Amino acid sequence: MKKINGGVSAAKGFKANGVHCGIRKNKDKLDLALITCDVRCAAASVYTKNKVKGAPLTVTKQNLSDGMAQAIICNSGNANTCNADGIEKATAMCDLVQAHTKINSGDVIVASTGVIGEPLNMQPIRDGMKSLVDGLSYDGSSFAAQAIMTTDRVQKEIAYSFELDGKECRIGGIAKGSGMINPNMATLLCFMTTDVDISSEMLNVALGKVVKDTLNMVCIDGDTSTNDMLSIMSSGLAGNGKITQKGSQFNTFCKCLQKALTYLAKEIAKDGEGATKLLECKVVKAKNTKCAKSIASSVVSSSLVKAAMFASDANWGRILCAIGYTQEQFDVSKIDVDLKSAAGTVRVCENGAGVKFDEEIATKVLSQSEVCILVDCNDGNSKATAWGCDLTYDYVRINADYRT
Amino acid sequence: MKKINGGVSAAKGFKANGVHCGIRKNKDKLDLALITCDVRCAAASVYTKNKVKGAPLTVTKQNLSDGMAQAIICNSGNANTCNADGIEKATAMCDLVQAHTKINSGDVIVASTGVIGEPLNMQPIRDGMKSLVDGLSYDGSSFAAQAIMTTDRVQKEIAYSFELDGKECRIGGIAKGSGMINPNMATLLCFMTTDVDISSEMLNVALGKVVKDTLNMVCIDGDTSTNDMLSIMSSGLAGNGKITQKGSQFNTFCKCLQKALTYLAKEIAKDGEGATKLLECKVVKAKNTKCAKSIASSVVSSSLVKAAMFASDANWGRILCAIGYTQEQFDVSKIDVDLKSAAGTVRVCENGAGVKFDEEIATKVLSQSEVCILVDCNDGNSKATAWGCDLTYDYVRINADYRT
Repeated sequence: MKKINGGVSAAKGFKANGVHCGIRKNKDKLDLALITCDVRCAAASVYTKNKVKGAPLTVTKQNLSDGMAQAIICNSGNANTCNADGIEKATAMCDLVQAHTKINSGDVIVASTGVIGEPLNMQPIRDGMKSLVDGLSYDGSSFAAQAIMTTDRVQKEIAYSFELDGKECRIGGIAKGSGMINPNMATLLCFMTTDVDISSEMLNVALGKVVKDTLNMVCIDGDTSTNDMLSIMSSGLAGNGKITQKGSQFNTFCKCLQKALTYLAKEIAKDGEGATKLLECKVVKAKNTKCAKSIASSVVSSSLVKAAMFASDANWGRILCAIGYTQEQFDVSKIDVDLKSAAGTVRVCENGAGVKFDEEIATKVLSQSEVCILVDCNDGNSKATAWGCDLTYDYVRINADYRT
Repeated sequence: MKKINGGVSAAKGFKANGVHCGIRKNKDKLDLALITCDVRCAAASVYTKNKVKGAPLTVTKQNLSDGMAQAIICNSGNANTCNADGIEKATAMCDLVQAHTKINSGDVIVASTGVIGEPLNMQPIRDGMKSLVDGLSYDGSSFAAQAIMTTDRVQKEIAYSFELDGKECRIGGIAKGSGMINPNMATLLCFMTTDVDISSEMLNVALGKVVKDTLNMVCIDGDTSTNDMLSIMSSGLAGNGKITQKGSQFNTFCKCLQKALTYLAKEIAKDGEGATKLLECKVVKAKNTKCAKSIASSVVSSSLVKAAMFASDANWGRILCAIGYTQEQFDVSKIDVDLKSAAGTVRVCENGAGVKFDEEIATKVLSQSEVCILVDCNDGNSKATAWGCDLTYDYVRINADYRT
């Protein structure tokens, strides 16, 4: 498996583009993205579990009912959610794709991200379609990646190449999301493409399997958005023998998908609103996976842990507190906690109680841009990892300012 | 029912005091509180559901196993939690009460609040006991209220008088808590006293019944502390016929307890770390109480709603989003949302979709120091209220600085 350039348009057959059409006032900010494929693709999606669902999700679900798609259109600046005319407008966006590309509107995945509850202005989208489609290219991923960003500070794209049946295959994608990020499909949009030949059924299985340990383990602020969606399209142009069941081919594909989504999950966590550092909580030797996941998520979600990490303060009592208020049953008195980073490792807690440590070294460890909290349950063989970020003044500033 | 002065020492037989003994460096900050009663009291307590429990809670539980108590000792500045010698030191605090007051150490409720995982220094407590006990008085409530404060900006006390069997009865209390506040016994300490004659069994029933709608409905930051505790002692000196079963006397008592705890719950929410305003979410016409509580808690807990409230920004989409990610089943398309305060009422959402409103008026409504988010589910007859506060720069500052 090799990291390559090209993001969402790295796989064979895929083009991408992004333009500023005018949904957002800032003319330098791209706000409309399109990804298309030269052929119809097997496709699969997972959606937010929020009961308030963005209209685009409803339309996408409908369009994906036959397991096929050929394009993704996505605007930023407005979520097209909680509006009486949401479905109508999301459908109109698919129709615009058809009008400009000849791709059937029923084969379009549609997404919107931004403010909830303000009617979406269709005029800029109509006006922007021509240049959006004209600019589609096999190396247009970064324009699409920029166009789906909201409060993100950096664009997020990844691609890997690998082999199946002696054929070179590719998988890649783009993602956005830095606030409203929480387990149950971290609040984000993620669009993946691959040229692996795989049935839409197995694509669905792969997505469900991999998302649980990647995007669902990202937590920025505990808010699960209304518009979360992860979609994947496979063009099948790599020429491998079509994957239609479980087995080693399928496992290889899942491993690569997992690698790509783990990368994007960490990128999203690192770029959490206002974040100055990536927080990783690794739980090992837990009784079972549910328990490991629950502890890992609880630690990276704790406002108090996050604020302490911002200050590079080894306030491990807050870590233990966050471990303690998970719903799982386990023995707190067996738990060890280490703080780790590129600057070293410091043990702060053993058998559920504090141990003496050098505060200066601890501060050095926590001052790195990526910090890992390692929780050893000494209680079994299961493990899990969750990602988050610190809680900073800028998180408040960004979210107090966002709409106005 | 009449609001009266006197706080935790308003009820007949109770004395209180608070001193600076030196657990905290700041000499102006009282850090050791004592509440005693002239007679042995029926007593009851509820505790944090965090699996990491402060040592003082274990000792208190043990001491309350006979349903009786006569004193409460509490220090701030150190939680005496996650230390190998925690139980020993919590027990030593009870012994110190016995040595200085003749109250049996087995009749002492002990509590600690502050940093987790640093060994508690007993010397200042030993040194401070004499002046603490010497200063006990029937109007010493405010000293005790100050001594249990950590990052609280204001002391919290309340007392009411009411009648039972023609006798004047009193109930009062003090509370602390402004960070680590979350449902399941908001992370706080609350000490209540009453002179109502009531069995410890019925005191337990009353506490369990009332805490669910009061302190458990406060949420500041989603962190449930290790040291939460609410205790109540009744001296029985009011002279009413002893309450030993349910009935109108018991209901009157519960009503007064509820009133006092509601007051303290709101005081705690209003004083949330860094808060500039009290957030109240009232849910009405819900399918059932569980659903109403879940929605109310979710709204006041949302970081994004809280940040919007800080900016007095009527970003109601975030409110609907927080409603949507509760676990309950209900019809989002029936929901109406109003924003209310002393400055007026603005409807922002009807039938789950946005309605046009005057942004200027909305900003005025949200600029008040107490803001209510009214959620009408149009789906039944149940209701619930939760309290919280806005999320501000100061929350981050306080929690990044706390330990160092």
